[in-house]
Formats: sequence, C-alpha cells, structure tokens
Amino acid sequence: MNFHVMTLFPEMIEQGMATSILGRAMEKGLISLNAVNIRDYTLDKHRRVDDYPYGGGAGMVMSADPVVRCYRALQEKMQGAKHRVIYLTPQGATFTQTMAEELAREEELVFLCGHYEGIDERALEMIVTDQVSIGDYVLTGGELPVMVMMDAISRLVPGVLNNQESSEFETFHDHLLEYPQYTRPEVYEGRRVPEVLLSGHHARIEEWRRQQSILRTKRVRPELLEKAIEEKLLSKKEMKFYRELLEENEKE
Amino acid sequence: MNFHVMTLFPEMIEQGMATSILGRAMEKGLISLNAVNIRDYTLDKHRRVDDYPYGGGAGMVMSADPVVRCYRALQEKMQGAKHRVIYLTPQGATFTQTMAEELAREEELVFLCGHYEGIDERALEMIVTDQVSIGDYVLTGGELPVMVMMDAISRLVPGVLNNQESSEFETFHDHLLEYPQYTRPEVYEGRRVPEVLLSGHHARIEEWRRQQSILRTKRVRPELLEKAIEEKLLSKKEMKFYRELLEENEKE
Repeated sequence: MNFHVMTLFPEMIEQGMATSILGRAMEKGLISLNAVNIRDYTLDKHRRVDDYPYGGGAGMVMSADPVVRCYRALQEKMQGAKHRVIYLTPQGATFTQTMAEELAREEELVFLCGHYEGIDERALEMIVTDQVSIGDYVLTGGELPVMVMMDAISRLVPGVLNNQESSEFETFHDHLLEYPQYTRPEVYEGRRVPEVLLSGHHARIEEWRRQQSILRTKRVRPELLEKAIEEKLLSKKEMKFYRELLEENEKE
Repeated sequence: MNFHVMTLFPEMIEQGMATSILGRAMEKGLISLNAVNIRDYTLDKHRRVDDYPYGGGAGMVMSADPVVRCYRALQEKMQGAKHRVIYLTPQGATFTQTMAEELAREEELVFLCGHYEGIDERALEMIVTDQVSIGDYVLTGGELPVMVMMDAISRLVPGVLNNQESSEFETFHDHLLEYPQYTRPEVYEGRRVPEVLLSGHHARIEEWRRQQSILRTKRVRPELLEKAIEEKLLSKKEMKFYRELLEENEKE
C-alpha cells in the first residue's frame, strides 16, 4: 500500500506516522508514505498558495494551479498506476470502517489536504475522485484527518498488526460496541472483576460479553443496535435478552 | 485552556500539536499542552502497562493501576481545579461540532488515550467522566483522536484564529455543507469561475451560495438537510428552491 499525501505540512504527516504501529509497518515495507509539499509547486514568486475568494467572504482559498501541478508530478511518479484521489473536507461523505476496508484493498492512495477556507473548486473537479469527512466537526486542516484515515486503513493491510494486536471481534463489524475488558488484579481498590470472567466457562463468558455489548450499544448508540437488529445480526437468545431489557426499562 | 493528555506516546502528541495554528496558540499562551506518559506510573519492574484479558480473547488490556496513578498525579498538579476526563474509544458518544463548542468553554480538559484492546473497565469507572468517539472506524490508539479533538476545540478558543482564518459561515453551524469556493484566475485551464461571483451583486452571490450549499448537502448528506428543514433554518425562498429541486429530480 502506497500512501501519497499532498499537503502544506509534510513534516507533520511524516512525524505523526513514524510513531507506533505504522512506523513499524513502513520499516517492514508493507506501507510506504510519500508526503509532498504543495508549496513546492507554486509558480508565485512569493511562494503563495492562496488568494482571496471570488464573491467575497472571510478566509483565503487555495489556488487551483499549485494543487494541480503537484498532482501531475505525483501522477508521473506513479507511472500510470491506477489510484484514487481523496480530498479531506467536512463536505465529504462520512468515513466509516466499511470505507476503510474498501480502501485497504487499493494499491495507491493519494490524499489532498486543504487549509484556509478550502481549495478552488476547479482543482477538485479536475483531480479528486472521492471527498471524505472523518466526522461532523471543523478542523484547521486536512492533515489530522489524513493521518486518521491512514491509521484506520493501514491496520487492515495484511501483516501490519500482529496476532496480539488484532482482534477477531471488532467494534463496527456487526454494529455492536465492544464489551468491557478486565485484566489483573482480580480486586483493584475494592473493585472485583465480574465473576463470570473467572469461571473458565467459555460459552457463558461469550454470552455475558455479547449481552454487555448489547447493553452498552443500547445506552450509547441506540441507532447502531437498531441496525444490528434490522440486519438480523442478533441470535434468538440475544433478541430475547434485548426484549427483556426493553420491558425492564418500561417498568422503571 | 489547559489540555492534559495521558498516553503511551507523549512525543507523538507534542510533535503533532507543535505544527500549524495550535503551536502558535501555545506560543501566545492561549493554550497549554501537558502530555504525560502512563508508562512512568507503572510499578511493574519491566515497566509493563498491559496484561492478558480475563475471560480470554485476542489482544492485551491496559492495567488499571498505572492509569489511575497517572491520573492522581495530574489531579495533584491541577490543585483541585474542576476538570472533565475524556476517554477516547469507539465505544463513546460521537464527537460533533456542538460537543467541541461545549468543551471549548472548559478551563481544564484531561484526555486518556487507550491502546491495545482497551483499558481495564475499573480504571474507567473510577476516573472517566466522558467517553467519546471521533467516528465509526477503528484506530490503533487514542492519540490521533485526541489531536483531532484538541484541534477542533482549540480553534474555538477566542484569539486562536485570526480574522483571515475564521469564517462567519461555517459548516455544521446550520447543518448545511459549505458552498464551492473559487479564487484567481478567472479562467483556469478552460474552466471559468461562475459568472455570479464576478457580478459584485452581494444579494445574488449570497443566494447562489446558499443554493449551492443546499444542492451539495442534498447530494452528499441528505440527513443533514432534513435536519435543517426540521429546525426551520431555511428561508421561504430557500424552501421554494428545495421543492423545485425535488420536482426536477422526480421528472428525471
């Protein structure tokens, strides 16, 4: 998987990705990162990359030309390899685990980070294939969102996570949130690990964990639980547990 | 605004925040960042902070004790100042611009970053006030989400953004996505800036931009547009434009 990032802050991307699991994946050669500075492609003698918006309004807009020229240089470097160009923007489709899984199957991904009030729309029309948002909040630039996306995508690339890190059961896989986790000691400042987890009875542990997932999803993200039920991802027994839960809530 | 971050990778947080607008806000003294290493608080002679989960399963769980001890040291440092403790987890409530606005009014924010398969639930029960998720995807740790949250929150702190950067009209403020932006030149590789933006007619420019926002929101995030209509954020004229749009779509 080759990541290419067009940005005004390439060193922020490089430093951020060097730490943790992704740095190791790069060392292993499973992932490569190529962060390029859009500012290197401006023809302006003061190295400016932004200008006032047509029609007025606060903020500056990134000019089309440095972005398009930066992209063309990348294109040449990729020697005709098929690739998607993802622009990070609050105006994009919302990033999800399903999208991460889909993007993890690509060979080359190009990301474009905006700054200021956005990028001249014509550059986006010319080069961007996907507009993506990591959530409904406003950030100062596209750099952190790109790092978030690269992190989510990389960990799905085969070989990046070792067995200790990867999990057969993962949040969002079946729309349910994960169950609570406990580790030693059995009693910590008077708080005990739930008895069932010490029982060694695998079926009962599994049942308890699924119930905890259902409870938590109902409390924090009820719309995800609705989805799981709609898609029939809950067993008969789990549906019974869920109905009893609803009845209890009604009584209260 | 004082940010405190409990993490296994304090240098990742520090480097990431040093760049861009937030570094400048720190220099100006508007924001302070204190990243502490949870590993410094383990009593384990091998400096371990994680252990196997009770009840089995893949992955390692962060032990309660180093997290709780790290927090208590922070508490002491804050000398009794009121503060919230935010744990970054896919199991949390979804971060939004509204939540960013609310958190920007706090004086002290403590963030807790998980790694591996999560943190011993008892530590979370003891110290955490808010569990927050930045989106429905799985990341290798809480560091990038904390940086995302600090970025979104910081830019709302008075004085952090200058006039050139801040915008009176912002995405998510009224549920509508932003309109397209254009800057010089008027014609770029055969593509013209929309005529209306060159007209100097402010009312028409404003109308065109709102229509573009409605069009874009309808295409990319129809559920946000529904919300805006429900909350009556569209003018009579805009509702007329929207109804005409629906009629056109039906004809096609």
